[in-house]
Amino acid sequence: MSSTLLYRLLDQELKIINIGVPSFSETLTAVNAPHIHVHWAPPAGGNVEAVELLDRLEVHAETIQRANAEALARILAARPVAVDVQPARDVVPGMDGRILLHAGPPVTWERMCGPVRGAVIGAILFEGWATTHAEAEALAASGGVRLEPNHHHSAVGPMAGLTSPSMPVFVVENQEAGNRAYVNMNEGLGKVLRFGANSAEVLERLAWMRDVLGPALGAAIRAAGGVDLKSITARALQMGDECHNRNTAATSLFVRTLFPYLVKTAAPEQLAEVADFLGRNDHFYLNLSMAACKVAMDAARGIEGSSVVVAMARNGTEFGVQLSGTGDQWFTAPSPVIDALFFPGYGPEDAARDLGDSCITETAGIGGFAMAAAPAIVQFVGGSVGDALNFTKEMRNITLGEERTYGIPALDFAGAPTGIDARLVVDTGILPVINTGVAHKEPGVGQVGAGIVRAPMDCFVEGLRALEERLSQSDR
Amino acid sequence: MSSTLLYRLLDQELKIINIGVPSFSETLTAVNAPHIHVHWAPPAGGNVEAVELLDRLEVHAETIQRANAEALARILAARPVAVDVQPARDVVPGMDGRILLHAGPPVTWERMCGPVRGAVIGAILFEGWATTHAEAEALAASGGVRLEPNHHHSAVGPMAGLTSPSMPVFVVENQEAGNRAYVNMNEGLGKVLRFGANSAEVLERLAWMRDVLGPALGAAIRAAGGVDLKSITARALQMGDECHNRNTAATSLFVRTLFPYLVKTAAPEQLAEVADFLGRNDHFYLNLSMAACKVAMDAARGIEGSSVVVAMARNGTEFGVQLSGTGDQWFTAPSPVIDALFFPGYGPEDAARDLGDSCITETAGIGGFAMAAAPAIVQFVGGSVGDALNFTKEMRNITLGEERTYGIPALDFAGAPTGIDARLVVDTGILPVINTGVAHKEPGVGQVGAGIVRAPMDCFVEGLRALEERLSQSDR
Repeated sequence: MSSTLLYRLLDQELKIINIGVPSFSETLTAVNAPHIHVHWAPPAGGNVEAVELLDRLEVHAETIQRANAEALARILAARPVAVDVQPARDVVPGMDGRILLHAGPPVTWERMCGPVRGAVIGAILFEGWATTHAEAEALAASGGVRLEPNHHHSAVGPMAGLTSPSMPVFVVENQEAGNRAYVNMNEGLGKVLRFGANSAEVLERLAWMRDVLGPALGAAIRAAGGVDLKSITARALQMGDECHNRNTAATSLFVRTLFPYLVKTAAPEQLAEVADFLGRNDHFYLNLSMAACKVAMDAARGIEGSSVVVAMARNGTEFGVQLSGTGDQWFTAPSPVIDALFFPGYGPEDAARDLGDSCITETAGIGGFAMAAAPAIVQFVGGSVGDALNFTKEMRNITLGEERTYGIPALDFAGAPTGIDARLVVDTGILPVINTGVAHKEPGVGQVGAGIVRAPMDCFVEGLRALEERLSQSDR
Repeated sequence: MSSTLLYRLLDQELKIINIGVPSFSETLTAVNAPHIHVHWAPPAGGNVEAVELLDRLEVHAETIQRANAEALARILAARPVAVDVQPARDVVPGMDGRILLHAGPPVTWERMCGPVRGAVIGAILFEGWATTHAEAEALAASGGVRLEPNHHHSAVGPMAGLTSPSMPVFVVENQEAGNRAYVNMNEGLGKVLRFGANSAEVLERLAWMRDVLGPALGAAIRAAGGVDLKSITARALQMGDECHNRNTAATSLFVRTLFPYLVKTAAPEQLAEVADFLGRNDHFYLNLSMAACKVAMDAARGIEGSSVVVAMARNGTEFGVQLSGTGDQWFTAPSPVIDALFFPGYGPEDAARDLGDSCITETAGIGGFAMAAAPAIVQFVGGSVGDALNFTKEMRNITLGEERTYGIPALDFAGAPTGIDARLVVDTGILPVINTGVAHKEPGVGQVGAGIVRAPMDCFVEGLRALEERLSQSDR
C-alpha cells in the first residue's frame, strides 16, 4: 500500500480495517461489525519485476514528486476556450498533403480494426483521393496516404477519430498556457464515419458539415469572442453529465450559449439546418469536451521525471498510454474487450475492441472518473447508481488531486479526481475506469452498445520502466 | 402512525425500530446497533381535535381511498404539452374588462403585501389604465380593478404572479384529460414585475415580451406542433434540476427544442433579441414547469371524497391549500417566514413572507419534493446534499404514489413522490417542503434570497374538517 493510501486511512477513526480479500469484509458486514474495506492486491498483480521497479523509482521519489506537482498544477490551471472553427489543413500542425489522422497510438493499415479501416476509406473518398471503395482501400494499403495518430498533431477524435485535411475542426485554446488542441465535429449517432460507416449518406453529411456547419459555428464562436469550455463542463457536471458518454446538458448549454451569435452571423436558410442538426444531437459536446481535456493534458507534457499520465487512447487494436516524463513514447497493450450493455439485436460477438481518443476525458479526470456526477448514465453503460459513486471514489486512489472547478454534487461537491499517477496505478492495481461507446467490429454498422472498460496494466508498468530508465540515465 | 407507514415498514427486515424521540436513535447509532428511526410526532402536534377529526374520517376511509386512487391516477396520467402563446385576454377564461390575476388565495388590496401591491401598480400602468403610480394605486385601492387569484382562472404565476389581459401566456394542454392551464412568461432576475418592481425599465421589458417574445415563441411552438413538457421535466430531473428553483437544464432543453422552429418562424432582428433573452435566463422554464404541474393537478380536482391536495399557493399574506374533494374552497393560514440564504447585503429583516403560485410544483411532486434530483440546489437554498436526499425521502411519507416518469437518479431512479394526502400530513405531522425564492418586502427591490419553507399545518387540518363535513352530509 502506498503512503498516500495509508495517509488517507489514518484520516479516519476506525476500529477494523480489512485489507485485501473482499470476503473477509463481507463476513464483517454480515455480523454488523463497522469496518472499512481497503482494496488491496499485490502490486501489478504480484508481478515481482513491477515491485522491483516501484522500489527503484523510490530512489527518485523527490524528483518525481516535484515533477508531478508541476504537472498537476498545469492541468488544474488550464483554461480551455473554443476560439474558432477552421479546416484542419489550415490549423492542425503538420496536416499537409495526403494525411489522415486516426485515434489511439500508431497503427499500420494491416493491423487496423474494421471500424478504423472503414473510416479511412470514407475519409479518402471524402477528400476525393479515390472514387470507389476498392480504389480507396488500395490507396490506403499501398501506403499512398500517411496514417498518423491525432495525438501527434495536438488533436483528438472519438471512436475511429478520423480527421482529414478538409474537415472543419474546433480550435480550443488553453488561455493559461497558450497551447491549442483540435477536434473534428460530432456527426450524431447511427451511420457515421467515426464508427466506420462510409456510405453516400455519411459523405454527404460530412460535406454539409464542411460547407455549412463548420463555417456557421466558426463565425458564431468568433462573434462570441470564444466559448469558455471549462465553465460549460463544470456546469454540466452539476447537471448529470460526465462529459464523455453523457453530454446532454453540456450540449444544451453550448448550443444556448452560441444561439444568439448564430442568429446574428448565419444566413437564415443555413441557420435552420444548423439549429435542426444541433437540436437532434445530444452528443455534440463530446468532441469539445475532449479537446478541452486535450489542451489541459498537453500543458502537462514533457516534465522530466513526472509519472503523470498525459494521454490514454485506443486505436481498436492497441491501447496506448503516454506519461509526462517520457516524451512522446507510447506504452501499449492489446485493446481490451468492453463490459457493455448492447443495443437490441447486438451482442458481444459484434463488438469491436476498445476504440477512440475519447478517454482523454478520463485522463483529465472526467468521464468514468466523474461518473458520480452522472448517475443517470448507468442506464446507458450499465451498473447501479452506487457503482457510479464508487468508480469516482476508487479513482481517488490513483490520482494526485482534485479539479475543484468540477465539483460533483453527489459527493458534496468534491472535485473530480485528476492527475493519474502511473505509480499509484501499478502500486494499488486499481486501473483507470473508462466509460465508452462500443463500435460494431465491421465497418459501417455503427454503435452497438456502451459500457465500462479498464485501461490495461501493462501500459503503466512499461511507462514506469521507461521513466525509471530516463531518470537513472540522467543521474549518471 | 398511519397504516401506509406501517405497511412500508413491514416491507423491510429490521431488528429495531425507533419511533418518535430522535435521541433514542442517536444512542443506537452510537453503539452501532442497526435500526431504523421513524419520524413520529403526536398527530397534528398533539391537537386533540385533529386526532378526533382523523378518527371521524376513518368512517369514510373506503370512499376516500377510492377517490384518492382516482386523483392519483389522473395526476400520473397527465400529459402536459405547451401548445401556444396568446394574449391572456384571448385565452384565459373570464379575463374580461379591468381584471388582474395574482398569486395565492384571494386577498384584498388592503391586506396585500408590498411586492404584490407593487406588481399590481405595474400591471395597471402596463395596461394603460393609469398613467402615474399614484393614479394606479388609487385605482387599485378604490376597487376599480378586479383582483382575483390565478388559480380561479386555470392559471398560475411565480412570486406576485401578476397576469394582466395583454400579457402573453403559454397555453399548456393536458393531452390526456383535455384541460388547459395558462402562465405568464419569466422576465429573468433583477428588477422584474413578479418581485413588485414597476419602473419604466420593467414596463418596457413587459412591452417587448408582449410584442416580440410572446408572438415569436407562439409561432415557434405552433410550428413545432407543441412541446412535450413532461418529457423536458423528466429529462431535467436527470440533469440536476428540480424544476422549481433550478431550471438550468430544463431551460436549455426547451430552448434547444424550439431553436430550429424559432429560426424558421421569427424575423431575423427579432430572433436575435429572443435568442439573447433566452440565453441569459436560466429560470425561463419555471413558468412552463408550473403550468405543466397545474394541468396535472387540475385534472384531479373535484373528486368527491378525495383528500388529495390539488393546490398550494401563497399571496405573501396567506398560504392557501385546496383539496380535490372540497371544490374551490381555500384553507388558509398566515404565510410563513422562509428559512433562507440571503444574497449579499440582505437579511431576514428585508424578506417578504412566502409568496407565489410556484409551489404548484411541490403540489405535483417536484420542486422541494424532488430535491434529491438537484443536489446542486443546496448552494442556492441552503443545506447539505444529504438534506436534499432526505427531503425527497421524507415526502414519501405524505404522498400516495410515485411519478415514475420523473425518476430520480440519486435514489436509484425512484419516482418523484406525488399526490399529497392531507390525512397523511396531519397524521404524521410532516409538512410539505417547498423550495422558494425570497422577495424583498418592499416593492421593486427584487429577489433577496432563496430558501426552504414548510406549508402550515392549519391549512391541512381545516381542509380535512371541510372534507369530513361534506362526507358526513352526503351520508345523511
